[in-house]
Amino acid sequence: MRIEVSLTPALYPFRTIASHHVAVAVDILRATTAVCAAFQAGCECVVPLDSLENLPAYRKLGYALAAERNGSKVGDAEYGNSPTEYLRHDMRGMRLAYSTTNGTVTILRAADADLTLVGAFANLSALADRLRMEDKDTVILCSGWKNAFCLEDTLFAGALIERVGGDPCGDAAHMALDLWQLAKGDPFSYCRKAEHVLRLERLGASADIPFAFQTDTCPVVPVLKDGKLIV
Amino acid sequence: MRIEVSLTPALYPFRTIASHHVAVAVDILRATTAVCAAFQAGCECVVPLDSLENLPAYRKLGYALAAERNGSKVGDAEYGNSPTEYLRHDMRGMRLAYSTTNGTVTILRAADADLTLVGAFANLSALADRLRMEDKDTVILCSGWKNAFCLEDTLFAGALIERVGGDPCGDAAHMALDLWQLAKGDPFSYCRKAEHVLRLERLGASADIPFAFQTDTCPVVPVLKDGKLIV
Repeated sequence: MRIEVSLTPALYPFRTIASHHVAVAVDILRATTAVCAAFQAGCECVVPLDSLENLPAYRKLGYALAAERNGSKVGDAEYGNSPTEYLRHDMRGMRLAYSTTNGTVTILRAADADLTLVGAFANLSALADRLRMEDKDTVILCSGWKNAFCLEDTLFAGALIERVGGDPCGDAAHMALDLWQLAKGDPFSYCRKAEHVLRLERLGASADIPFAFQTDTCPVVPVLKDGKLIV
Repeated sequence: MRIEVSLTPALYPFRTIASHHVAVAVDILRATTAVCAAFQAGCECVVPLDSLENLPAYRKLGYALAAERNGSKVGDAEYGNSPTEYLRHDMRGMRLAYSTTNGTVTILRAADADLTLVGAFANLSALADRLRMEDKDTVILCSGWKNAFCLEDTLFAGALIERVGGDPCGDAAHMALDLWQLAKGDPFSYCRKAEHVLRLERLGASADIPFAFQTDTCPVVPVLKDGKLIV
């Protein structure tokens, strides 16, 4: 099985593996880490939305709302996109409508794959097991930050390729693997220079950062089905 | 001075440094290495063109034509984009109209900067000296391959940041620097896994590959002025 890495949404159209593949949507800080945390906390389903405008309609349907823009919780949503906040709540049976700056957009962009999964360090081992079981060409779709490259998603892509043991397809996959070799001893420390780490620290979201680099804190594999993430 | 890296043309619109900057256009294999070689061989000027259609008009004006698509020389052009081929010719006084798959497009995209330079390992030291003299925010524009990420341009970006000693701006610059630390002992060997290296080897252009990773073979700094590259 080949594994390719799209470094940002702006590069998705230029990937080699375009049909009959598994897609893994990644936004380590924090959207996909938070999705894993939501299911770990008992959530029933998460509906990823690219626009805040659609949130009120979901509230009328009984959904709880989670929304973030530029690192901060949005207005009247019950939740932002903090995984450690999710884990402090009992979300059993909850249906969540979810919109973030980058990550939910990435999940929706990945929806044209045969199978769309959500990936983070939080579910690394469970996700790698699932990918090995599927044994299909795989594209890891990194979110970056507003279409720009980011270190943390790329590191995770490298970690996932290593863990799955597939064939890296294309230069971005090789780079991600090599960067991971450099950082794997302590990925959290390596990413202290990452722009979004510095941004979240300024915003006071420091607790989420080391959490997002811990592996296997939320051993679930969210799957996109009919516009909803379920496990 | 800050130095930012755009990893492919598709990511140029999302860079941080957008105004009042120096741009360095990079396509190590082979367009910008070949531009340096053309001047080293005596060329008077090189006109970068994004389309093959404009070439015949330049022939009527007395220009020699150099054109490449997908790694191979195009039809009736005198030259392709092989730097080692250029260096075998006496190009003194020659005006060259030049169109390649990626590199000339990148040079033209970089034209909105206050100063647009051409960079390659071939002119690394001379270019770094010039950038230090300018002492302005700098964006290194990598060509990649048809908007996809490539290893060799990214490595060069890391090498240039290291040599100039500016402040890496953004995650891509940090990644490029770290990748360069990993590969600098032998960048040619490191890039044996790069897609475009494999492509050029299939096409029989093997001599250009080690040449393109040698530093300071062509100590010139091509500058874009009124649509023409000059030194």
